[in-house]
Amino acid sequence: MIDLYAFATPNSIKVPIMLEEVGLDYRLIKVNIRSGEQKAPEFLALNPNGKVPVIVDLEGPDGKPVTITESAAILIYLAEKTGKLIPQTSVDRIRMFEWMFFHASGLGPAFGNSGYFQKLAPSPAPLAIERFSNEAKRTLAVLDKRLGEVEYLAGSYSIADIVNFGWIWRREFAGVDFSETPNVARWYEALEQRDAVKAAISKLTA
Amino acid sequence: MIDLYAFATPNSIKVPIMLEEVGLDYRLIKVNIRSGEQKAPEFLALNPNGKVPVIVDLEGPDGKPVTITESAAILIYLAEKTGKLIPQTSVDRIRMFEWMFFHASGLGPAFGNSGYFQKLAPSPAPLAIERFSNEAKRTLAVLDKRLGEVEYLAGSYSIADIVNFGWIWRREFAGVDFSETPNVARWYEALEQRDAVKAAISKLTA
Repeated sequence: MIDLYAFATPNSIKVPIMLEEVGLDYRLIKVNIRSGEQKAPEFLALNPNGKVPVIVDLEGPDGKPVTITESAAILIYLAEKTGKLIPQTSVDRIRMFEWMFFHASGLGPAFGNSGYFQKLAPSPAPLAIERFSNEAKRTLAVLDKRLGEVEYLAGSYSIADIVNFGWIWRREFAGVDFSETPNVARWYEALEQRDAVKAAISKLTA
Repeated sequence: MIDLYAFATPNSIKVPIMLEEVGLDYRLIKVNIRSGEQKAPEFLALNPNGKVPVIVDLEGPDGKPVTITESAAILIYLAEKTGKLIPQTSVDRIRMFEWMFFHASGLGPAFGNSGYFQKLAPSPAPLAIERFSNEAKRTLAVLDKRLGEVEYLAGSYSIADIVNFGWIWRREFAGVDFSETPNVARWYEALEQRDAVKAAISKLTA
């Protein structure tokens, strides 16, 4: 059994999708980040960084419980635990890690900050809006170029796709759409039709 | 032989450190990002995301050349190629990926944006300066807590430490120092004294 601490966020959604894909039992524990539950002492004891998602795998390495933070690290753990959705052949494996870090360091922060300054900031900051909305569009175009060359980011469907689904799912917050990125649109629709993705969204947004 | 395209940046420095640590031959090709060389067509053919570092391993998988982007993905590739600086035992391995993604998605973007709005932005944006300088200090404190519990981020010295060295090396740009983070200071000094780190800094900043 895996305890999943999550909310309906771009980073959280990746984990129930993965758990549904690999068929591991889990219990969803919602952490309401709008009311600041991620900053409560009990949650900070799980993740000192104060972020969802977090998992506690009650049957971790050597049969002992293990707590894991960082959505992409959780996906690598679950992929290695089950042997699923992680390519072992070298070039596909290289691409998998590349596109996971592209989302973590590039597209994700750009989308998050674009949305923050457009929708949540306490006062207008035009310079920041311009910087991050441009960067959100630019990184989306980089993703689109890749998806014009391959069906999935690492050749076949893998955790690299699940990672990138996160912020693309919440693209409206970032103020971007698919009007200029047909390849991302095609890829997103394919993911959205997967049973695991449907089940994860349904449970996380319930 | 590995061709390394890099400049004296927080993300670039990780790669020559790793190459020096594992003892692989490499040729350093400087890409002057101040004059925009990373946006030139020849470089975009290597990395459509327009970022350093990039490597081309002339003896990649199956003996064929392979081009790799994203500094953390490059480090995983080099670690798996040589079997060095990557823990195989489960819990250490979990921590390694966690702290690599912590830097990629959290500390790195916070430091980068903190420096950008304080030092490079065309006009003042106090809201953005406050947001990112606070986040730079907060993420540094999270790193400090971890380094108060362990000597290195994944137990023994690994690519997780080399990844986090990147932006800590360039902390002045982000406007942070070690005055309230003694554990980070201790860890940083240990890394700075390694022959591989000295050699990499010397070559990259020459």
